[in-house]
Formats: sequence, structure tokens, C-alpha cells
Amino acid sequence: MSRRQPSLAETLGEIRTRVDSRLDELVPRESEKPELLHQAIRYSLTAPGKRVRPALTILAATVFRGSIDLALDPACAVELVHTASLILDDLPSMDDATLRRGRKANHLVFGEDLSILAAFALLNRAFSVVSESAHLSLRTRSDLAAILSRAIGSEGVVAGQTVDLRSTAQTIDFETLEYIHSRKTGALFIASAEMGAAVAGLSGKKLEPIHAYAKNLGLAFQILDDLLDLEGTAEQTGKTVQQDVKKTTFVSFSGASGARSLASELVTVAVDALRPYGRRADPLRELARSLLRDGVVQH
Amino acid sequence: MSRRQPSLAETLGEIRTRVDSRLDELVPRESEKPELLHQAIRYSLTAPGKRVRPALTILAATVFRGSIDLALDPACAVELVHTASLILDDLPSMDDATLRRGRKANHLVFGEDLSILAAFALLNRAFSVVSESAHLSLRTRSDLAAILSRAIGSEGVVAGQTVDLRSTAQTIDFETLEYIHSRKTGALFIASAEMGAAVAGLSGKKLEPIHAYAKNLGLAFQILDDLLDLEGTAEQTGKTVQQDVKKTTFVSFSGASGARSLASELVTVAVDALRPYGRRADPLRELARSLLRDGVVQH
Repeated sequence: MSRRQPSLAETLGEIRTRVDSRLDELVPRESEKPELLHQAIRYSLTAPGKRVRPALTILAATVFRGSIDLALDPACAVELVHTASLILDDLPSMDDATLRRGRKANHLVFGEDLSILAAFALLNRAFSVVSESAHLSLRTRSDLAAILSRAIGSEGVVAGQTVDLRSTAQTIDFETLEYIHSRKTGALFIASAEMGAAVAGLSGKKLEPIHAYAKNLGLAFQILDDLLDLEGTAEQTGKTVQQDVKKTTFVSFSGASGARSLASELVTVAVDALRPYGRRADPLRELARSLLRDGVVQH
Repeated sequence: MSRRQPSLAETLGEIRTRVDSRLDELVPRESEKPELLHQAIRYSLTAPGKRVRPALTILAATVFRGSIDLALDPACAVELVHTASLILDDLPSMDDATLRRGRKANHLVFGEDLSILAAFALLNRAFSVVSESAHLSLRTRSDLAAILSRAIGSEGVVAGQTVDLRSTAQTIDFETLEYIHSRKTGALFIASAEMGAAVAGLSGKKLEPIHAYAKNLGLAFQILDDLLDLEGTAEQTGKTVQQDVKKTTFVSFSGASGARSLASELVTVAVDALRPYGRRADPLRELARSLLRDGVVQH
């Protein structure tokens, strides 16, 4: 009997199911004390998302002969961090957004204080998930924590968000725009991919091609997101749209069709970066092309 | 030549100097981009504090023949987390406090958004400091991350803060009060002490006495803090006082003198818990007695 290779869509569907079910195990029940905290955490964590970042981690692991089982917890750690960052982004003192992943923003349901604490708890949990991944070597766990932390801190998501917030309603140059998005979105994309590769045993120079891939993919993803913010509806995107009117985006620099071309170019660069890995990296190439084709909905 | 044993005050002074100088190395300069983020981080981290928690870590390590050098980074990680929690506590959506460690609250200087991001970055940095402590074994680093994470999350600081916030202006029973403070203050005290002992190689059952010590010391510390909030001045405490008038505290249950007796009893219990370790634990006993004697100023 010949067995058909699963399509990318099937693989992504399986990954999403595995990730969602593991995330459910990794955080306390809503009935556990303090109930409100756990409700706030689960409210955002279980909201429908594409789980693009965990998919990147798991695909990166499997193309290098790691297994889904080994990569699952690190993939969930990335999603825990991402969810924390979405909760913070939406706060009144930040983007003051009302809708996310098709649901009311976390702070509108649980209050600003609990939202902040939930985000804090999610970040904290991400690190314990990585450090407690019993089926990974202690060395790998330590490497994963380092990759994750670098993506979040002063060179990563927090840095990007800081500059973004302080650039709103100001004219910024292209360099600053790239600074913001290579950190706000790019850094966690890179960490997601590198963590998957690290689970499969890659380190040092061997990570460079996947680093370049994820960096360009992250930027493309951000541009597609900017386009959706402008052109999409809240129903399509699951979040407040036209949030960016006061912000300089890739679209405000290049117009919609220029931005679309740029995203397409970046995907080409991302795909080409994988050349040293040969054909085995095809699932990562396919993922990049599918994001470009289908757009970015409810990430 | 006979060498005099240093006094506890001298030891604590040395610890504070070492911790402050190491903390300074562990976070980016204010001149590094994004400057505002690093200014916000350093503003709270370098504010004068007693460094009680790092002292606990380092004393716990040294009484079990660990060295100050080995314990220094874990001790700093605890202080990074503690500083993050202070920034969050003071936010308008939480205690809405204006003064901390003798300085204006972080959000009054940098804005609420940057305060939240600074706290997030501090928590993140704590985990990378632990996982990158190159002179500790990978096993110890992983154990430290687990201890730290447990102290922060759903069973720790975040849980205590959640219940505290949702109990303000409500009548709560003694059990709830203990729930709040054993987590808000106690959990990080326990983690501080356990991390020091773990650095010195203790694990499992051997941690039980120091766990009991730190738990009781943490509660005593909280009661002394409640007393100071009521009786102290902003000048003495370095923070907004009479913040707790709307809250149920140990003082509102037992009155000032009852609270003072309770703190004293808890310190006795803490000191007695150390019996299995014999005389070598004396510095920890002395620390407990000195906190009771001198009160809690600018922690």
C-alpha cells in the first residue's frame, strides 16, 4: 500500500490540534484558584489562532528529523509568549484595541490589572515549559531558553513594541519601520524557527539559513498584516482594523500594491535562504508561500 | 593574626554592593537602543533597596558552603523579578501608588506602557540570567528556573496579587489574607532561599527546613510592612504609605501590637525551623532577627 504524503494544510491542521490540546494541558484549569486569573489566561490562549509560530517550530524540527513530540512543548512556549504579547499590545495604554482573535480584548473582559497579570503569568509559564521539557537534554533546554529570551527582551519584541509606541503619530523613516517590525514580529518568528531546529540538534552556523528564512518571512507576514489592517474587515481578521491609521506602516511607504510586491519579494528571499538544506526544507518553503497566498487571518 | 568574623551588617553591606554592581552589568546601558526602555528598567532597578531577597539567596548558599560567586546571578534574578513586580503593583490599574523606593513610581516618569514593558523585560531577563549562569551545572540552572517560575505563576506572586486586587474594599477572612501574602511575598522569599540552597547542592527533603524558614520569614516581613504602612512616613519607607486603608491587613485583624507579636512569633518559628542544619545556619537566624528588630525600610 502506498501512503500519500499529507498536504501542508493537513500537516498544519494536525499541528494546530496537537498544539491546542497541549496548551490546554500546560495551563491551570479555570476552576483552579485564582479562578479569574486562569479564566483570563485561557480566554486569550484558547481564542482561535492560526498557530503560525508553533507551526514554524514544529516544521523546523521535523524537516531536520526532530519529531513533533520533541518540538511540541517548545512550540507551545512560543505561543504562550505570543499570546502574552497580544494581550499587552491591546491594552489602553498601548494600542487600545477592542477586538482580538474574534473576541473582545482581554482587558475589556477581565480588567486591565488582570490582563497584565495574565500576560505576566503566560511569559513566566513559557520559560518553565521550556526548562521542564523532560524529553529534551538539559543543554537543549538551556539553549531554547536563551533563544526565547533573546527574542523577547531588549533586542526583541519588547524593544520593537517600545519604539512602535513612541513612534505613533510621528513621521518615521524606513529604517525605523524595519527596526520595529524585525523585532515586534521578526524576533519571535526567528526564535520559533531556531527553537525547532535546535530541538533537532542544529546549532551555530547551521542555524544561519533558517534564521534568514524566518527573518524575511516575519517581515513579509507583518506587511501582509498591515495590508489586512487597511483592507480587511474585523470579521476577516478577528481584530480591530484600521488601527494603524495613525502609524507609519509598510503600506504608507509603498502603497498597497508596492507593499504586496515587497511581501512577495521577501517570501522569495526567505525560500531561497533555505537552499543549503536542500529539498528536505520544502515544507518550510510551502509554509512561506501559503502565508503569502492566503494572507494572515486570526494569527 | 586572628581574623574577626564580619558582622551580619557587614556581610549584608558586601552582598548589597556585589548585587548592585552585578545588576548593573546584567541589563543594557541607558544609552543602548531603545533608550527609553532601558532608562525605565534602570530607574527602578537602581533605586535604593535593601536587597533582602538576594541576601537570602546568597546567605542560603554560603551557609551550605556554596560561594557568593556561584549564588550571585541567581540572587540577581530574584531581584529582577521582584523589581518587575513592584513596577506592576504601582500601576494605576493596580495599587495606583506614586512613590516607590524613594522615587516617583515608574509609570509616572515613563508612562504606563513603558512601565509594563520594562516589567516584562525584567521578568524575561531573570530567566535568561538563570539559564546562562555558565558556572552552574545545567541541572542546577534548570532547577533554579523551575523554582523561580513556580514562585511567580499561578501558585505564586501573580496569584497573590490577583486575589489581593480583587479583595480590596471587601471583607476577607484570615485564611484569604494568608493566601494573599504567602504568595505575594512568601513565594519569592521561599524561592530566594531555595535557590541559594540549590546552588549549594541541596535538593529534595533537605530543602524542607529552609522552605519553612523562608515561608515564616516572608509572612513576618509582610506584617512588618503592613505596620510600616500604617505607622511609618513616606520618608522612612520610600513608598506611598497608608495605601492599605482600603485593604484588610494583618494589622486590621490583630491591631498594631497584636501584629507585632505575630511577626515576632513567626520569626521564632522561622529560626526554629532551621534546627536540622545546626549552627552553620546562624547567619540566616541573624537575618531573621535583624529584620524584626530594624523593620522593613525601602525593600
